[in-house]
Amino acid sequence: MATARVKEILSWYAGENPGVLANLARLMNSGKLAGTGRFVILPVDQGFEHGPARSFAPNPPGYDPRYHFHLAIDAGCNAYAAPLGFIEGGAAEFAGDIPLILKLNNHDSLAPDGSDPTPSVTGSVQDALRLGCAAIGYTIYPGSAQFQGMYEVLAELSREAKACGLAVVVWSYPRGSGLSKEGETAIDVTAYAAQIAAQLGANVIKVKPPTGHIEQAEAKKVYEKEKIPVGTLAERVKHVVDSAFGGRRIVIFSGGAKGSDEKVFEECRGIREGGGFGSIIGRNSFQRPKPEALKFLAECMKIYA
Amino acid sequence: MATARVKEILSWYAGENPGVLANLARLMNSGKLAGTGRFVILPVDQGFEHGPARSFAPNPPGYDPRYHFHLAIDAGCNAYAAPLGFIEGGAAEFAGDIPLILKLNNHDSLAPDGSDPTPSVTGSVQDALRLGCAAIGYTIYPGSAQFQGMYEVLAELSREAKACGLAVVVWSYPRGSGLSKEGETAIDVTAYAAQIAAQLGANVIKVKPPTGHIEQAEAKKVYEKEKIPVGTLAERVKHVVDSAFGGRRIVIFSGGAKGSDEKVFEECRGIREGGGFGSIIGRNSFQRPKPEALKFLAECMKIYA
Amino acid sequence: MATARVKEILSWYAGENPGVLANLARLMNSGKLAGTGRFVILPVDQGFEHGPARSFAPNPPGYDPRYHFHLAIDAGCNAYAAPLGFIEGGAAEFAGDIPLILKLNNHDSLAPDGSDPTPSVTGSVQDALRLGCAAIGYTIYPGSAQFQGMYEVLAELSREAKACGLAVVVWSYPRGSGLSKEGETAIDVTAYAAQIAAQLGANVIKVKPPTGHIEQAEAKKVYEKEKIPVGTLAERVKHVVDSAFGGRRIVIFSGGAKGSDEKVFEECRGIREGGGFGSIIGRNSFQRPKPEALKFLAECMKIYA
Amino acid sequence: MATARVKEILSWYAGENPGVLANLARLMNSGKLAGTGRFVILPVDQGFEHGPARSFAPNPPGYDPRYHFHLAIDAGCNAYAAPLGFIEGGAAEFAGDIPLILKLNNHDSLAPDGSDPTPSVTGSVQDALRLGCAAIGYTIYPGSAQFQGMYEVLAELSREAKACGLAVVVWSYPRGSGLSKEGETAIDVTAYAAQIAAQLGANVIKVKPPTGHIEQAEAKKVYEKEKIPVGTLAERVKHVVDSAFGGRRIVIFSGGAKGSDEKVFEECRGIREGGGFGSIIGRNSFQRPKPEALKFLAECMKIYA
Amino acid sequence: MATARVKEILSWYAGENPGVLANLARLMNSGKLAGTGRFVILPVDQGFEHGPARSFAPNPPGYDPRYHFHLAIDAGCNAYAAPLGFIEGGAAEFAGDIPLILKLNNHDSLAPDGSDPTPSVTGSVQDALRLGCAAIGYTIYPGSAQFQGMYEVLAELSREAKACGLAVVVWSYPRGSGLSKEGETAIDVTAYAAQIAAQLGANVIKVKPPTGHIEQAEAKKVYEKEKIPVGTLAERVKHVVDSAFGGRRIVIFSGGAKGSDEKVFEECRGIREGGGFGSIIGRNSFQRPKPEALKFLAECMKIYA
Repeated sequence: MATARVKEILSWYAGENPGVLANLARLMNSGKLAGTGRFVILPVDQGFEHGPARSFAPNPPGYDPRYHFHLAIDAGCNAYAAPLGFIEGGAAEFAGDIPLILKLNNHDSLAPDGSDPTPSVTGSVQDALRLGCAAIGYTIYPGSAQFQGMYEVLAELSREAKACGLAVVVWSYPRGSGLSKEGETAIDVTAYAAQIAAQLGANVIKVKPPTGHIEQAEAKKVYEKEKIPVGTLAERVKHVVDSAFGGRRIVIFSGGAKGSDEKVFEECRGIREGGGFGSIIGRNSFQRPKPEALKFLAECMKIYA
Repeated sequence: MATARVKEILSWYAGENPGVLANLARLMNSGKLAGTGRFVILPVDQGFEHGPARSFAPNPPGYDPRYHFHLAIDAGCNAYAAPLGFIEGGAAEFAGDIPLILKLNNHDSLAPDGSDPTPSVTGSVQDALRLGCAAIGYTIYPGSAQFQGMYEVLAELSREAKACGLAVVVWSYPRGSGLSKEGETAIDVTAYAAQIAAQLGANVIKVKPPTGHIEQAEAKKVYEKEKIPVGTLAERVKHVVDSAFGGRRIVIFSGGAKGSDEKVFEECRGIREGGGFGSIIGRNSFQRPKPEALKFLAECMKIYA
Repeated sequence: MATARVKEILSWYAGENPGVLANLARLMNSGKLAGTGRFVILPVDQGFEHGPARSFAPNPPGYDPRYHFHLAIDAGCNAYAAPLGFIEGGAAEFAGDIPLILKLNNHDSLAPDGSDPTPSVTGSVQDALRLGCAAIGYTIYPGSAQFQGMYEVLAELSREAKACGLAVVVWSYPRGSGLSKEGETAIDVTAYAAQIAAQLGANVIKVKPPTGHIEQAEAKKVYEKEKIPVGTLAERVKHVVDSAFGGRRIVIFSGGAKGSDEKVFEECRGIREGGGFGSIIGRNSFQRPKPEALKFLAECMKIYA
Repeated sequence: MATARVKEILSWYAGENPGVLANLARLMNSGKLAGTGRFVILPVDQGFEHGPARSFAPNPPGYDPRYHFHLAIDAGCNAYAAPLGFIEGGAAEFAGDIPLILKLNNHDSLAPDGSDPTPSVTGSVQDALRLGCAAIGYTIYPGSAQFQGMYEVLAELSREAKACGLAVVVWSYPRGSGLSKEGETAIDVTAYAAQIAAQLGANVIKVKPPTGHIEQAEAKKVYEKEKIPVGTLAERVKHVVDSAFGGRRIVIFSGGAKGSDEKVFEECRGIREGGGFGSIIGRNSFQRPKPEALKFLAECMKIYA
Repeated sequence: MATARVKEILSWYAGENPGVLANLARLMNSGKLAGTGRFVILPVDQGFEHGPARSFAPNPPGYDPRYHFHLAIDAGCNAYAAPLGFIEGGAAEFAGDIPLILKLNNHDSLAPDGSDPTPSVTGSVQDALRLGCAAIGYTIYPGSAQFQGMYEVLAELSREAKACGLAVVVWSYPRGSGLSKEGETAIDVTAYAAQIAAQLGANVIKVKPPTGHIEQAEAKKVYEKEKIPVGTLAERVKHVVDSAFGGRRIVIFSGGAKGSDEKVFEECRGIREGGGFGSIIGRNSFQRPKPEALKFLAECMKIYA
């Protein structure tokens, strides 16, 4: 039976059909954080995004797609997210063991594309269904010159996914010629990215932990006039969560580049304190030996429990 | 039973099927202005268009999508219009309480697009149907280099919507490299924008209150030769309403940027006097505390009643 | 019963299905010229193409879409042609009173498009069917850099229309960066434009009255060598009609910009003398008071009768 | 009953369904060359490609689409090929009298397109079926910057046509910014063009008679090393026929620009001697009085008989 | 009955439906290497890619599509891969004699495309089915500016093929403006290319034998830090095979340009030693007399047996 907290969260999605609600419930009722409404998700798309050696050489068992299923299951993650090939590589063997999120678009770093990323659609709702997934994943890059295509494809895939009862998880990563480098993680931009994802119908929104920088002049005036507190990570997380429909959408935060564990834990505490719903942690999880990874993830989950 | 005025207005749309007529009637038979053929509509797409802080920080309850449903219902608006996420955020809870207009395209201000806006299609007729909406909304930017795509997508969505019995509301906002800044609200351009929307099959047309400026040289000759009066707002509104099929299309006017209440009321009086059908007022409504907003909207409605 | 002349003309279209033949017959059996195989058609797309004030301020009743239905019916035109909105504005009220041609693409003059026009597809075959039309209308601009899209969309719409029993009327207006200004109405270019429309499957072809100018060097050699007579309008009309399958396609001529009535009548006489099938006269008809317009159109019809 | 030669040729197409085989047989069992496996085809697309005066003024009866049906039938051609309008102009009247090839793409010379031709798709497989055609025709321009679109559309149309039992005739005319003017008819380029058409699934391939010029440096090395004989037209034709699957595809040659009859006959002899399957002769046929044309075509056929 | 090795390999593809598994089994149970899990495949797409003379003049029987069926069957290859025309040229005659791979995209060298290849889609899944193929083949060029279109079309074709029970073979050839010439075969780039193909859902991956060069600065750091051995071909092959899901995807290597036989055999030994699954050898096979080719291929197979 769903806990009161899970039921409360589901109530925010009353506009969705029972299939989507059931899959959102599956995400919230799996793993060590089951029933808490908190999330720690394992995403492994770096093989596609950065190449295999950069991704898996630090911990070679990770070349094998089954490794990540084992890791996510043994760690008690809420879900495992990956591109088509990696999901195909274990979906049958681990059928029913953990909710899966099929990432439907991806980008590689061999491409000569300059500053505006143009991810390719590499999977479909039909793939997600045949592989037994609970949700689709999709990345948008607000601020990119290619935004229109990304938003429109997301709108279509999202519609198709929801009609099939799948939940929709959106990675909203501002990047592109509309933004400065610093602006990609600015608080105003991150909050805006969460809002865009929510307006596009995302059920779960993933953003990067924001900095205190404010990118847009028009926004800066408002932050100052309205005295929106953005000094601490917790304050910034709260503002981002507010920006996703007043806290009525699940917003989780990426674990970022590989760093010291304590830095990650500190970040998790800030996210929890600000009302964030959890973390999605890739490189910090799978680029170390499995026992260490399990210990590390257990610590993260303890913070959110 | 529909009033004589509502029946008269419906008679202008004899080309539409009964489903569309019924939804037009729903828009006219809801709220405080029911039966008058006048409109005050609450639109909330600023979260997508300008970002969450700029939109909702001045009145933080507005971060929550339910707030705007409550506001529109309590104020007695004819309808509430918003993008997909905001409609999904309350459509179930407030099912049947107020006619909804799903805005099918939107634009954000993180994009690096320069002077020619390229809104993304972020929702569908199917979304409007599953969410119980009475109409779809769509924005065109006449004068933009991207006009062709916008007009053609509107033509398709409009056809699909009408076939499903949904009404079609078009925001016609001239903007882009074909126009000067001043020209965006010029009287000739605004009248032309209303004509284009009407020719594209719009049932309800939303334009900005026009200024007395005349943008196009060829048009200027005609305005002068034919002595078309455009000195007062009422005269200009009358000319715009005439330009939308001799007054046989519902034309409403945007409430504009946040200004003094008296200025807005003055504008409403001009619109009413010129034969306009009402106002669609966003920021002036939801960016203030709810009691003040209700008072403000009541005053607007009193003018139109 | 169809006259011998109507039957003869229909025999040229033996490749079409009975539905198309019936609609061609409707066009030829309506109005004052019924049975003669001649045409005077009222087209009103200027509201979209030039804006409402430039189109309707000279005769303000024309803002109302019903005005043009009345005008075409009272004058005894063969058909009335207009964009979606204008047809929707009267199709129910005047159902069955006059054959309608739904213009499926249109262009506005707010757009910043330079020399190569890119009309938008603003209606569909389905619209033409639901509105009870006899034919679709479509404009191509041979010589435009955008020709490929226009031809291919026409090919598709034409196929769809004919399969539904609708006739296809093509406005073939050379214009764009492939041509000089003078070349747009050159005799070789106009004849070529008629040929292209015919090869694309047009049932009725509308071109502009050609001048004696010859645009293309390769063509000039042939005109001189073969001594093709193009000195008078009648000779040029004959050559254009020949160029449309040896006279076996209905070719009509636009009434051009507003001019003196006598000039228009002179042109009609030239068209008739050269074997042209009639005129399609917009601005010269609807931009004057209705009594004058009826008198003017009656005179044109008398020439063709 | 099919002759042994026809049966042999059909055996090369064992991969096709019986519908396609039957239509290939129709092409080979029609006209004076019936049963020989040789072809003389009448193509008339010059009206679209060069304009009506340049095409038909030298022999004015050719303005009428019926003229070309009569000419092809009376001359005993294997087939008649033309764009949509010209086929529509006689398909009913001459139903069953001669196999028809509907040319599905065409290009006009009013377009401002420079060196890379971009033909428009102006007909469909559905058109070919409703008009009772035996085959579709399609032109590709290897060497054009637009090659990708042309090849992909051909692949789709070809698939659709074959599924409906229609044969596929491909005009493979190298042209565009990838080639020098001389290279357009170079022997290596022509042979390559035949190979591309064959690989794309063409049943009948039409190329221009090649010159002895070799365009590509990499190819030149091979021609010299392998001592491929390309000195005479017969040798070049043999090499082109070899290049189309070792002689197991029907390859025919265009009759070229208007020239002296003896030059054409000489070319036909070279084609026959080299193992070519025949000629497709447009301007040299229809741009002279019909009696002369019949005599001329009879002479061509005598060479191939 | 499948051997233990074949069963083991099939177990890696547990995510696929039985149709795909059966076709993968067909590939592994055919020819001299049946049951070993090793592959020698004959590909013949050079006619399309390089032109007929450069491809077939060195051994003229190869102009005939049947030659390559005979060669592949007589040599005991696992499969024969070619574009549409070449497969159509023998699919009926050799039905059931050898598994076929229909290459769905191809590129020719007449095109003026510069450094970023843009292959055309020249066949379909439907073609593969009607021709009795076991798999589709598709080439991607990571590093090309056109990557997005290629990946997305592969994703769609792959989905369609698998749904129909066809296996998917991907040629992953880095090339384009994102890479230096040397980088096209760099070890990091080749490993990345194998990873991308695997993530896109390829069942069989074909790459070029990698050199020891490392192209990307970010990757170089990792190769050095993690001391990934890339000194010998066997080490590099092992790294590439690891990079394709830890050895759980079939990775085969191209036979490269024509070279001395001993060099090819040496390469085969390196591939075998590194755990590669075999070779796909075109020009070195079909550009010599058949008896020599059979001897050459027998030697290659002996190495892998």
